[in-house]
Amino acid sequence: MKLPESRIRTIFARRPVAYLATVGAEGRPHQVPIVFAYLNGLFWSPVDGKPKSGTELTRVHNLRANPWMSLLLEEYDEDWSRLWWIRIDGEGSVTQPANADAISALEEKYPQYQEIPVLTESSTMLCITPTKTVSWCAR
Amino acid sequence: MKLPESRIRTIFARRPVAYLATVGAEGRPHQVPIVFAYLNGLFWSPVDGKPKSGTELTRVHNLRANPWMSLLLEEYDEDWSRLWWIRIDGEGSVTQPANADAISALEEKYPQYQEIPVLTESSTMLCITPTKTVSWCAR
Repeated sequence: MKLPESRIRTIFARRPVAYLATVGAEGRPHQVPIVFAYLNGLFWSPVDGKPKSGTELTRVHNLRANPWMSLLLEEYDEDWSRLWWIRIDGEGSVTQPANADAISALEEKYPQYQEIPVLTESSTMLCITPTKTVSWCAR
Repeated sequence: MKLPESRIRTIFARRPVAYLATVGAEGRPHQVPIVFAYLNGLFWSPVDGKPKSGTELTRVHNLRANPWMSLLLEEYDEDWSRLWWIRIDGEGSVTQPANADAISALEEKYPQYQEIPVLTESSTMLCITPTKTVSWCAR
């Protein structure tokens, strides 16, 4: 079964973590958990608020060469009748400076950023444009 | 920081869900949550115990053409000092009939399979051979 559209919107707004897959050289997939804010149909994810350490993160490196990505949202439950997942296929791009509205949305969603203020407008951010959203729930 | 090896082994044995990424045509990634059993250095994941519906699952289709895959294990925590993830890069293959030891391990790990007995030796299973394991924890 698909998830109702209203539930998908709630999950996009509240779920704190998603799993980002990108593709590197020789068609090798790469995955990493990300935090994100969903804003006007786009997903925004901070990459790093600190100055570049010199080596580019794999997700950034991959997206520069191949923008296709996948975002998975899921919450495991021992009661398998409560399982659900949402997969977003789309294109990712790397933006710097970071989008100011996205920074505000991230700070509002994650109270942790009040103690870890690494988000600045000079931060690098991923912007994900969904092209297809697929959902599944057990019932 | 890396996770201690002993903790990684415990997570491999007990964590009920992982996120599988494979790569399809034109370098597009695909993700899906999976259940799995870790046995003698390999990850086994049941694909479907029911007879084929005619269309092959994307993960199976992708792995037949490109065996490179990634498996992500993660458990979100609002306390970001407790965050961790493990990523396994490796190769996946599709096996049928299913490995009997893997079926036993899955039934032992997931009591749900006592009520949902879809695992049979004629089932299709994914076998994942890790080539690289990367872990991260906040502290």
